[in-house]
Amino acid sequence: MVYITRREHFNAAHRLFRSDFSEAENLRVFGKCSNPNWHGHNYILYVTVKGNVNPDTGFVVNLKALSQLIRERIIEKLDHKNINLEVDFMAGQLTSTENLAIAIWEELESEIRKMGGILHLVKVEETENNSVEYFGN
Amino acid sequence: MVYITRREHFNAAHRLFRSDFSEAENLRVFGKCSNPNWHGHNYILYVTVKGNVNPDTGFVVNLKALSQLIRERIIEKLDHKNINLEVDFMAGQLTSTENLAIAIWEELESEIRKMGGILHLVKVEETENNSVEYFGN
Amino acid sequence: MVYITRREHFNAAHRLFRSDFSEAENLRVFGKCSNPNWHGHNYILYVTVKGNVNPDTGFVVNLKALSQLIRERIIEKLDHKNINLEVDFMAGQLTSTENLAIAIWEELESEIRKMGGILHLVKVEETENNSVEYFGN
Amino acid sequence: MVYITRREHFNAAHRLFRSDFSEAENLRVFGKCSNPNWHGHNYILYVTVKGNVNPDTGFVVNLKALSQLIRERIIEKLDHKNINLEVDFMAGQLTSTENLAIAIWEELESEIRKMGGILHLVKVEETENNSVEYFGN
Amino acid sequence: MVYITRREHFNAAHRLFRSDFSEAENLRVFGKCSNPNWHGHNYILYVTVKGNVNPDTGFVVNLKALSQLIRERIIEKLDHKNINLEVDFMAGQLTSTENLAIAIWEELESEIRKMGGILHLVKVEETENNSVEYFGN
Amino acid sequence: MVYITRREHFNAAHRLFRSDFSEAENLRVFGKCSNPNWHGHNYILYVTVKGNVNPDTGFVVNLKALSQLIRERIIEKLDHKNINLEVDFMAGQLTSTENLAIAIWEELESEIRKMGGILHLVKVEETENNSVEYFGN
Repeated sequence: MVYITRREHFNAAHRLFRSDFSEAENLRVFGKCSNPNWHGHNYILYVTVKGNVNPDTGFVVNLKALSQLIRERIIEKLDHKNINLEVDFMAGQLTSTENLAIAIWEELESEIRKMGGILHLVKVEETENNSVEYFGN
Repeated sequence: MVYITRREHFNAAHRLFRSDFSEAENLRVFGKCSNPNWHGHNYILYVTVKGNVNPDTGFVVNLKALSQLIRERIIEKLDHKNINLEVDFMAGQLTSTENLAIAIWEELESEIRKMGGILHLVKVEETENNSVEYFGN
Repeated sequence: MVYITRREHFNAAHRLFRSDFSEAENLRVFGKCSNPNWHGHNYILYVTVKGNVNPDTGFVVNLKALSQLIRERIIEKLDHKNINLEVDFMAGQLTSTENLAIAIWEELESEIRKMGGILHLVKVEETENNSVEYFGN
Repeated sequence: MVYITRREHFNAAHRLFRSDFSEAENLRVFGKCSNPNWHGHNYILYVTVKGNVNPDTGFVVNLKALSQLIRERIIEKLDHKNINLEVDFMAGQLTSTENLAIAIWEELESEIRKMGGILHLVKVEETENNSVEYFGN
Repeated sequence: MVYITRREHFNAAHRLFRSDFSEAENLRVFGKCSNPNWHGHNYILYVTVKGNVNPDTGFVVNLKALSQLIRERIIEKLDHKNINLEVDFMAGQLTSTENLAIAIWEELESEIRKMGGILHLVKVEETENNSVEYFGN
Repeated sequence: MVYITRREHFNAAHRLFRSDFSEAENLRVFGKCSNPNWHGHNYILYVTVKGNVNPDTGFVVNLKALSQLIRERIIEKLDHKNINLEVDFMAGQLTSTENLAIAIWEELESEIRKMGGILHLVKVEETENNSVEYFGN
């Protein structure tokens, strides 16, 4: 088993809030992240795939193909977008980094299996101080 | 003359667009940065101050005081905010990184002179690939 | 299970040595790290907490609260301090990065459980080339 | 169990290709990485060793000795070299990052056991976007 | 005057040597960088353009257009290439980082003037420890 | 004129204080940096040398020789040392980053001239947030 990781990034706006909360409650629970006028981040995404090395290529999976998959399925939908309003796979969810990592996993897992790899880890860095890792359940 | 630099950061939403442009024109000129639903960045701000070293302290200016000034005048107003809608010193301006750097310079220059230093450079990194520097005019 | 990581940092002095060793023995075992006049580092601390995502907040634990806990329990005691002389939870120990990571784990584990999370990993980077990870025993 | 990691780096040339492929086939499978005139990278190598902390030193293993071992066995052979042509432990192999990580593991494992540690992970970063991890089989 | 900087990167092989030197002389002057089998780097390129801010766009020059220009004129020719053998604008030159920075400047200067900006700086990082800056003559 | 920069680093302890100040005064002026038990940093040093490119080598100065000079004159004296107590060229001075940068300049300037280059800039990063640049007077 070898693990390969591809790093991609996207810049997006979001807001943490619940519509069933008052603005004061949102502020208490989510702090300045609940700003009704949005804020944003340069998110960094790491996708780790595991598998055996194909002796014909020396690859677990082709990294160029993996990068293309991540861009089509994830980056195209998130980059320069509003995560709360415009991203189909986040619809109806709190846009925490935790939920984002889980949703990205759900989008990628079966596609990566079709490429011959096993999705191992989705890591999302929201800032250089805050990150989330999801290994599936 | 010695130059000291303080690094701070803020996470904000913005959008590049002109209200006198059609959506198609905005898209042509500003690309995906014109998304009406906003996007955002983890901005990094570098403020460089020059001056002589005070022999009593070994400092050009006290970095703790400089950091506090930048936070009060700049970071408090930008962090987790929408630059187009909520930042007084950007009101009515295109929120390009260029204009942001110039506006931060205007906010800081006289305050830094009061501290005994001379503002030399405001540098704003929008992403790890794009940055702007302003040395005054 | 989702894993969230908070990054904090502290700047401290320390020295690797044993009082039952001669200066020559300390030099042989610990090299220049045994300098009797101390040296220091910009340490970077990563604390990873695992848990289920709370559906009410989208969080494993509130990162702001986690950051505050780490600052109160760890950073306040280490930052701009001498690890050998001034840090209660390192008293009587060799101040290796290994022992530091274990001690930070001991300080944080039960507190994080009170927050509703499970401490998964304490990582301490002493330099960009040297780091230690502790996952508990 | 504590895990310590040492970071080293090397700059090398390589090429992905199979001699039983036509140039067109190599281009299709390996893309621009198959350039017959070579290309190169600043590789970053992370070696993680696990073990118990030696109470006499506070160390899992002595990091200076670990660094020296990695330099003698790995870096000396790879730095400023052509991985396809000049590196004994890569002879006859596709020079993918996957194969490189496995080969470095094979070179280091028994040597690290002699030092009293257990090799846990070899991580090789080819670029800031692409990396491979190998934990043994 | 405002200065904007675009960061791009390329991975290439090269070798420092003079054909009128013996192998021993090349080794004495250029050290391991003269390896006849080549070595390589992940080069990072920073291009800084100065100019006035266009009040219609908020831009000095359009960064997307600048990025495209750098990719077409520079990155396409250098990425995954052998700088000694395959790069027209380096033909017949020692492939030092100094000469590379000057040659990139020559390729870009007039093109950037056509875009309405003034090339201010070409910076090339060969490794995280070594870099070169050229401001024109 | 071309500018080349070499990056080196050193880990050291220090303290900001004046012996003619009371402990309370030191605390007021220098904050936690005045801790009598010392603290420390992983300092990063950048030395920039300017000059014409030597057509025989493609170099402004030989970077290996420059690195060796910096190590002998600066790093050997600072690394794993106490800047207040052990560094000859800082004797009797406040160990601010400003004074450190100036002192390093004084140590290097004539030596670099002997190598055929002109010292242009000494930059010292004390932390990722604080740095000082000195261009001579």
